[in-house]
Amino acid sequence: MTVNIDRIQHDLEKINAFNATPDRGITRLTFSKEYQKAQAYIIDQLRQIDAQISISHGGNLTGRIVGSHSRGPAVMLGSHLDTVVNGGRFDGLAGVVCALETARVIVEGGIAHRLPLDVVVFAEEEGARFGRGLLGSSVWTGAIDRARLQEIKDDDGVSYLEAMALAGLTVDDQDRLEPANLRAMLEVHIEQGATLEKKGKRIGLVEAIVGINQFEVTIEGMANHAGTTAMAHRLDALQGAVRIIAAVEDIALRTAASTVVTVGKVVCDPGQSNVIPGRVKFSLDVRDADAAAIESAVAQIIQVADTVCKDRGLTFKITPGTRAAPVALSGSLIELMDQKASEMQIKSLRMDSGAGHDTAVMAGLTESAMIFLPSKDGRSHCPEEFTSPEDIKLGCELLLATAIELSR
Amino acid sequence: MTVNIDRIQHDLEKINAFNATPDRGITRLTFSKEYQKAQAYIIDQLRQIDAQISISHGGNLTGRIVGSHSRGPAVMLGSHLDTVVNGGRFDGLAGVVCALETARVIVEGGIAHRLPLDVVVFAEEEGARFGRGLLGSSVWTGAIDRARLQEIKDDDGVSYLEAMALAGLTVDDQDRLEPANLRAMLEVHIEQGATLEKKGKRIGLVEAIVGINQFEVTIEGMANHAGTTAMAHRLDALQGAVRIIAAVEDIALRTAASTVVTVGKVVCDPGQSNVIPGRVKFSLDVRDADAAAIESAVAQIIQVADTVCKDRGLTFKITPGTRAAPVALSGSLIELMDQKASEMQIKSLRMDSGAGHDTAVMAGLTESAMIFLPSKDGRSHCPEEFTSPEDIKLGCELLLATAIELSR
Repeated sequence: MTVNIDRIQHDLEKINAFNATPDRGITRLTFSKEYQKAQAYIIDQLRQIDAQISISHGGNLTGRIVGSHSRGPAVMLGSHLDTVVNGGRFDGLAGVVCALETARVIVEGGIAHRLPLDVVVFAEEEGARFGRGLLGSSVWTGAIDRARLQEIKDDDGVSYLEAMALAGLTVDDQDRLEPANLRAMLEVHIEQGATLEKKGKRIGLVEAIVGINQFEVTIEGMANHAGTTAMAHRLDALQGAVRIIAAVEDIALRTAASTVVTVGKVVCDPGQSNVIPGRVKFSLDVRDADAAAIESAVAQIIQVADTVCKDRGLTFKITPGTRAAPVALSGSLIELMDQKASEMQIKSLRMDSGAGHDTAVMAGLTESAMIFLPSKDGRSHCPEEFTSPEDIKLGCELLLATAIELSR
Repeated sequence: MTVNIDRIQHDLEKINAFNATPDRGITRLTFSKEYQKAQAYIIDQLRQIDAQISISHGGNLTGRIVGSHSRGPAVMLGSHLDTVVNGGRFDGLAGVVCALETARVIVEGGIAHRLPLDVVVFAEEEGARFGRGLLGSSVWTGAIDRARLQEIKDDDGVSYLEAMALAGLTVDDQDRLEPANLRAMLEVHIEQGATLEKKGKRIGLVEAIVGINQFEVTIEGMANHAGTTAMAHRLDALQGAVRIIAAVEDIALRTAASTVVTVGKVVCDPGQSNVIPGRVKFSLDVRDADAAAIESAVAQIIQVADTVCKDRGLTFKITPGTRAAPVALSGSLIELMDQKASEMQIKSLRMDSGAGHDTAVMAGLTESAMIFLPSKDGRSHCPEEFTSPEDIKLGCELLLATAIELSR
C-alpha cells in the first residue's frame, strides 16, 4: 500500500518513447499519433484496475474508480499528456502518472473510499497544436462553447473536431462538468521555475495561479528593396518592432517584482533577407498573480507601440489571444495538504504558479489544489527539463494521502 | 524609325499575363511554366525579325541580329524575365522589352550596323527559385562552374539542370562568353528606389553597382518557460537580438550616406508565444558602392553583437552568405550615353545601383552600362512596382541611340 516509484518510472519511459522529435526533446501534440499511443497506454493501465473509461467534450480522458457511494461527487486527479514542441519529459506527464499510480495503489490496496476517484487527462493544455491553451478543460467546463471546436484549427487547417475524429476519439460522456458532481480537483505538476530548488524545498503548495494576457502585435510599414531604398526613406516594420520588444523587458521590471513579460515569436513578412519587412507580427505574454499589474504592463506596452509607430510612420494593431484572470486555489485544501506533508516530515512551501494550468479552470467549479515539484535549474519546456524520481515519489505520496482523505 | 511604345506596352501585357500569382503581383520563377511561355513569346518576336536564336549554358536566351561584319564582337542588350515571388511588372521585363524593341526598330528601319546585336535574356537573376541570384550570367561568363548546376536545387529538390530540361531548353551555344567576342553590354532597368523621382530626373546612368555582404547572426541563450522564469533569471536570445537589430539602423546612418543595412528575416527558436526564445537567427544585408564602408559597417555590427551578448550572458556566431565587391561600370559609355541623352534634351543623373544586376557580372568582360528608369514611390519587388510608359519609351530611345552608335 505504498507508491511504487519503479512503476512510475516505467510509465514515464513508456510514454516518453511516444515522441515526434526523438533527438530534440519531447513533442507530443494533442491528438497526434504519439499522443494517441500515450493515451492508449494510460487507458490500458486504467483498464487493469477496472476503471471506467470515458471521453468528454474537448477530448478529455477519464478513468473512473467507482467508490462505495457510486453516485457521489468525484475527487479528480490528473494533468495533461500534450507537450510544447521540443518540450520536456515531465511537464503534464508527471501529474498524469502520479494520478494513475494513486488510483493503482488505492485499488490494489483495497483502500475504502466512498467517492469516485477520477484519473483525468485534459486535452490541449499547452495550446501548441491549436494555438490556445487549457482548451480541453475549458470546453468540458463550458468556459468555451464546444461548437467553437469546429473553427479552431491547427497550422495545417485541421479543425479540433476533425483531429479528434482522426485520432479515433468518440465522445461518450456528453455531460458538462458541474460543481454538484465534483468534490475536488488535485493536480501534481513540476514547478517549471527555480523557486523550490533555490529555497531547498521539495513540495510547493500553490496559493494562486497567475493571470495571463496573451496578444499579438502587428506592425505595418512598407516592404521595399533592401539595396535601393535609402535608410531615410524606409518604413521598416521590423525596426519599429525591435524597439517595442526591447522596451517590454524594462516594462516588466518596473511594473512589479512578480510581473513577467515575454516575446516568444517574431514573424517578418515577406521574411526575405533582401527585402525590408513590410509587416512584422510578434507575440506577447504578460503574467502576474495581481490582475492590476497585468493591466498596467499591457497599457505600457501599447503606449510604447503607439509612440514608436508614430515616430516612424508605422501603424500597429493588437489581436487579443488567451486571457485568464489570476485564480486563487483552495485555502482549506492547502491546509489539509500541509498537514499531510507534516505527517510525512516534509515542510512545504506556499507559492504562486507562473504558468497556467487546467486546475485554474477547474477552480471555478470545485475546491482545487496543486502540488508543485522542483524543476532542476528551473528549466522547463525544453529537453533539459528534469525532476528527480525521489521528488515525484514524494509528490505522489502526498497526492495519495490527500485523495484518500477526500474520498473517504 | 522610332520606338513604338504601343508595341512595348503590348509586350509587357502579354508577358505579365504569364504569372503564377494573378491576385498578388507577378511571380514568374526561372524555367517555370509561366517563364517558358514568356520566353516563347520573346523568341517568337525575335524570329519575326530574323534573329538567330540560341541557348547558352546557364539557360540564357540570345537572339542575334547579324551585322555586316558577321564575326565582329557583339553589342549585347538585355535583362531578365524571372521575378521574385509576388513581385512587380517591370523589374527585368522592362529591360528585355526595350532590348527587343531596339532590335525591331533597327531591323525594320534597315539601320546599318557592322557589329552583331544580341538581345539577351539572362536566367535566374533574382535567385527566387534556386536561392542564388545572377546565376545564368555567372555560368555563361564562367564565374560559376556549370557543373555546379547539377547540385543547385530549388525548394522541391529539382536541380537547375533538371528544371532546364523540363522546360525543354537545350544548350546549343556551348561557348563561354569571352571579352574578344563582346563590344559592350547595355541594360535598361527600373531604379527600384526613389532617387530619380525625388530629384525629378527621368534617366539614371549607373556609375557603380554596390557591393554586398550578406550574413546570418545566431544568438544563443536558454529556452525557458514564459510564466515561471523571473525576468532576472532569463537568458532570452530575442532580447539580445532586438538590441543588435535596433543598432544596425544607427550603424548604417553613421557609416556613410550611401550605406544601407537591412534585417529582413528573424526566426525565434522554439518560436512559441509561451517560451522564452533560446536561439534567434536573423539575416543581415549590408551594401555600399564603397567596399570600405561595407567592411566598417560589418565590423561595427559584430562589435555591437559582442557587447550585447557579453552583457546578457548570451553567445553569438556569424554565418557568411552572399558577398560581392562593388563594380564600377564604364566611364566612357556613361559619357556616350550622357551625350546621346543631351541630344534628346534630357539631363540624366549619375548614380549608383543599390541592387545587383547581371551587368555587374558582364562588367568583368566588356564595357558595360545601365540605364535606370524612375520607380514610382521607389517601390519594387512588390505588386505596386510602377514605371510609366513615357519613361520606358525614353529609356528605350536612349538604348537605341547608344546601340546604333556602338554597332555602327
